[in-house]
Amino acid sequence: MRAFTDERDWAKFHDPKSLILALVGEVGELAELFQWLPADEAAQKVSSDPLRRRVGEEMADVLAYLVRLADILDIDLAEVARQKLENSAERFPPADFRGEAPEKI
Amino acid sequence: MRAFTDERDWAKFHDPKSLILALVGEVGELAELFQWLPADEAAQKVSSDPLRRRVGEEMADVLAYLVRLADILDIDLAEVARQKLENSAERFPPADFRGEAPEKI
Amino acid sequence: MRAFTDERDWAKFHDPKSLILALVGEVGELAELFQWLPADEAAQKVSSDPLRRRVGEEMADVLAYLVRLADILDIDLAEVARQKLENSAERFPPADFRGEAPEKI
Amino acid sequence: MRAFTDERDWAKFHDPKSLILALVGEVGELAELFQWLPADEAAQKVSSDPLRRRVGEEMADVLAYLVRLADILDIDLAEVARQKLENSAERFPPADFRGEAPEKI
Repeated sequence: MRAFTDERDWAKFHDPKSLILALVGEVGELAELFQWLPADEAAQKVSSDPLRRRVGEEMADVLAYLVRLADILDIDLAEVARQKLENSAERFPPADFRGEAPEKI
Repeated sequence: MRAFTDERDWAKFHDPKSLILALVGEVGELAELFQWLPADEAAQKVSSDPLRRRVGEEMADVLAYLVRLADILDIDLAEVARQKLENSAERFPPADFRGEAPEKI
Repeated sequence: MRAFTDERDWAKFHDPKSLILALVGEVGELAELFQWLPADEAAQKVSSDPLRRRVGEEMADVLAYLVRLADILDIDLAEVARQKLENSAERFPPADFRGEAPEKI
Repeated sequence: MRAFTDERDWAKFHDPKSLILALVGEVGELAELFQWLPADEAAQKVSSDPLRRRVGEEMADVLAYLVRLADILDIDLAEVARQKLENSAERFPPADFRGEAPEKI
């Protein structure tokens, strides 16, 4: 994403708030692909093309902007993700939360 | 995320629409950290803790749900991201788009 | 919202991109209240307090920022909503779309 | 929205989680219209057509799904919005918050 951006001189557009709005745009496109699918059939319905391909493309766009945001903020996304998951694992002991959905991880 | 989920028997909550709503929740928390920051000072203001740590945590949560969604849909997120970026590179030749923001990648 | 904002001298924070990020934050909070609820039980589960009250508060916040955005852009939200619904009614004749979900209104 | 929905037999698609995903889709489209605009020029750039018309249409779609969600949940959106604004007015006394952005209203 950094090379892709620099080759087009698009870095000037990539301040944090603009990148988050772009991320929101891609999350919105992902949501639109699922919005009217029955909840219990959604996974099956997107298991074949063309829907499967479109879902993958929107997920790719979400990741692209998330990675780009991490880049301009000099945040090691993989590292913070590992740390956050470790923290969540401690906050939600399996013995105490088995089968019970917490409000958020 | 798969192990974290299975150890807590949370897979039953992870249908696509529920995971996208969870992703939206985390994107919302990320947006709230930036909403009132001046656009041209945002990157600098989140360059130090505690804001930097909080931004990293919210970005980690967004990635966690995106990766989990990819897992249940059996989509290779890294691979589709590489393919999408290649496609975008072809759709937006540097010579034609230098310095001009396209509506979306 | 205009009076509420002016009384606190908050108008300086209300540029369009900031307000949309604030709107995204509230939509995220609304999504979090529903994310793990079974799709077919969600409406019933939020039909009583305290969840019903919390859902109403988040919906109120989404509306507040949408109305504030319309105010700073001098857009008559009620009027554009009426026009858009009329356009959608023409684009989706009941006879042609009965029972079939379009990708979007 | 209720009449528009019933005339097309679309009520069966309008469970809360699906409507929130549809709302997210429209918020995403609104975000995309602003994402690359300079923060301090955004309001001016959307002050004339065709951008002004498109922004109004996306805001109308956001309101349409918000109103529809309120309808299926039997929530008086205007009333909860008035109550929430009154509560926010009490939580943020002008004398204490003048010119200082709170994290959220």
